[in-house]
Amino acid sequence: MDTVFFVVCDGIGDRPIAELGRKTPLEAAKTPNLDKLAQMGISGAMHVIDPGVKPGSDTAHLALLGYDPKVYYTGRGPFEVAGIDMQIEPGDVCFRVNMSTVDSKLMVIDRRAGRIGDTGEFADLFNGTEIDGAKFLLKKATAHRLGMILRGKGLSSEVTGSDPKAVNIKVKKSKPKDDSAEAKYTAEVLNKFLEMAHEKLKELKSNKQREKEGKLVANYMLIRGAGVYPEIPSFKEKYGLTSVCIAGAGLYKGVGKVLGMKVVEVKGATGKPDSDLRAKVKKALELKKNYDFLFLHFKGADSLGEDGDYKGKVKFIEKIDKAIKPLVSLKRALVVVTADHSTPCGLKDHSGDDVPVMITSDQVRDDDVRHFNERECAKGRLGHIRAAYLMPIILDLMGLAQKFGA
Amino acid sequence: MDTVFFVVCDGIGDRPIAELGRKTPLEAAKTPNLDKLAQMGISGAMHVIDPGVKPGSDTAHLALLGYDPKVYYTGRGPFEVAGIDMQIEPGDVCFRVNMSTVDSKLMVIDRRAGRIGDTGEFADLFNGTEIDGAKFLLKKATAHRLGMILRGKGLSSEVTGSDPKAVNIKVKKSKPKDDSAEAKYTAEVLNKFLEMAHEKLKELKSNKQREKEGKLVANYMLIRGAGVYPEIPSFKEKYGLTSVCIAGAGLYKGVGKVLGMKVVEVKGATGKPDSDLRAKVKKALELKKNYDFLFLHFKGADSLGEDGDYKGKVKFIEKIDKAIKPLVSLKRALVVVTADHSTPCGLKDHSGDDVPVMITSDQVRDDDVRHFNERECAKGRLGHIRAAYLMPIILDLMGLAQKFGA
Repeated sequence: MDTVFFVVCDGIGDRPIAELGRKTPLEAAKTPNLDKLAQMGISGAMHVIDPGVKPGSDTAHLALLGYDPKVYYTGRGPFEVAGIDMQIEPGDVCFRVNMSTVDSKLMVIDRRAGRIGDTGEFADLFNGTEIDGAKFLLKKATAHRLGMILRGKGLSSEVTGSDPKAVNIKVKKSKPKDDSAEAKYTAEVLNKFLEMAHEKLKELKSNKQREKEGKLVANYMLIRGAGVYPEIPSFKEKYGLTSVCIAGAGLYKGVGKVLGMKVVEVKGATGKPDSDLRAKVKKALELKKNYDFLFLHFKGADSLGEDGDYKGKVKFIEKIDKAIKPLVSLKRALVVVTADHSTPCGLKDHSGDDVPVMITSDQVRDDDVRHFNERECAKGRLGHIRAAYLMPIILDLMGLAQKFGA
Repeated sequence: MDTVFFVVCDGIGDRPIAELGRKTPLEAAKTPNLDKLAQMGISGAMHVIDPGVKPGSDTAHLALLGYDPKVYYTGRGPFEVAGIDMQIEPGDVCFRVNMSTVDSKLMVIDRRAGRIGDTGEFADLFNGTEIDGAKFLLKKATAHRLGMILRGKGLSSEVTGSDPKAVNIKVKKSKPKDDSAEAKYTAEVLNKFLEMAHEKLKELKSNKQREKEGKLVANYMLIRGAGVYPEIPSFKEKYGLTSVCIAGAGLYKGVGKVLGMKVVEVKGATGKPDSDLRAKVKKALELKKNYDFLFLHFKGADSLGEDGDYKGKVKFIEKIDKAIKPLVSLKRALVVVTADHSTPCGLKDHSGDDVPVMITSDQVRDDDVRHFNERECAKGRLGHIRAAYLMPIILDLMGLAQKFGA
């Protein structure tokens, strides 16, 4: 049976960019190895959720791995906290947190506090805080992020967060999303916590230092993605495959954890554009003998898209191309390369555009596609598919599909 | 935010026509402006409802605008009567009416009485008629059409009409579609009305005159499309967009009315092949500053297809092409051109064939399509989509899509 290398290039899809001669970064980048895979395999354009639907990173990964997000998605929080190895208990409400910069009127200046690199200090400062009987557990995640668990009796995940999701807007107060006493209580303790945290962060020594250096300070916590742990069958239960997750950023490790994948740490895998992609591929090749399905996640293109950095995105795509070179000449392997969504540099956000997808294996009906990009893949033999069909196609190429009928 | 020009060329799709060298009218027509839009944008083939499903004009327009007709369609009548500004009350049953020609045995000779041009005389003749406690309200619509409301206690829309939908067949009697007393009563009063109307029409002075001139007489009312007013969210509620409907024919104005669009009258917009399409485009351009979404409807190609007039259809398509020229060079605009269904001249009816669709905007991933027609658009990067996805795709290109997940 072929081993599956399932490579997700986060946010790799884009839209035409005037400065690149109306090419996308993926069209503009030199990608001889991705192109070789395209030449060997079958390609298509994939709607991760549905045409025109803008996926989140969490729902997108569930969909890519064949888990209908309309059934299994409860909020992003649980995936974030699982990804950084926080231990969850029944009844916990999980959140993701951004360290951010606000002005004196609580208007957001930067939603990521200049993409501050290490949030350990902030986790230490607030971990264990108790407010009105509810306990706050915090742990640092990648870059400007933290995971947060709210633990106690009578909590609810039906609350909004503090993140206004845009700059030059005031931070939000958490509000209950239903009429329950639990949601009201949860929103209240969250708001008390945020206010307290802001006061402490303003006075924090490291922030005073940042200010002195002309850097953005990390003086507000933007929380979002409230959710309880989803009931979800493991990857092994669903497909009978042993699987590994190789990712840098917390969310993707979290998705792996929640699905019962073996989450492997790789030195230098940062989840940022500086990540050591070669090391991740090397690790996957080492594990090939012992696992059926290797999920490799490359984050950088998405962050660069969100920053509107099209030059950086081109470069990062070329870095991916170099890193995946060993996958071109593999035997007994089925290589899938795709994205969870597009992140157009002009939009600085996810979009609902389809993403390129290609599958290479001994069994696959190869086609005339010669380049791995949005334009060429859309002409491929796989046609336009929904991500919901990707795992069934992979299983079928592996000879594992169940017959429907007799 | 881009302003959307949503151009529906009713019935523009067709099938190969021997006399046109197996081209369709859209392939045979010279359409430099539509072609330019195709070159700038992304194209596809669109199933308005589902593959092979033959849409009505009403269900098709609901689907195009993102309203699932399986949820919101209650019959055509309400859209027709709304389109001609008849005031509807709760409990009213609405119908559309064709003036038609029948022989002495009630066999249909022409379902449109030679596309008779003005039905005001017939509306005046029968408006206000009361039969067994039910009141008939009639108003003229475009060409051979009228709108009719049946008002009273204990009525039902679960009744069939009198239209056999073909010639050389006898007109139908209205029948109840369920076992209710209401449906039985409604069918009875309808049949009494139709019989009475036929007797009066036979003796009508203007019909005697038509007979003398060798013209088709308007001596029978073909009613159909019984429906009550649907409960439907407005376009503004659903999408947050202000919108305008620019159409000649009643049904399309009715769809606009029902969806809460601003329905704008344009001088010379007749809903017929002689309609002043340039004036409609000019009006849309004037309104660009004040509205988000401009729905432009061109009817002629559909009527010409129903008449089997492929030469006329080619000409009308070229007229559309000239009229939309100003849309080619617009800034800050998203231009969509498509159809509600195909109306093959050989079939003289709607068909379930897909329709060409193209979207032009700054943001869109343009493709290799060079001509706007059935054959070329089907090769486009949009692939084969259902109309249900068109509005989500448009909203995503406008930057208005809501993220599913985080």
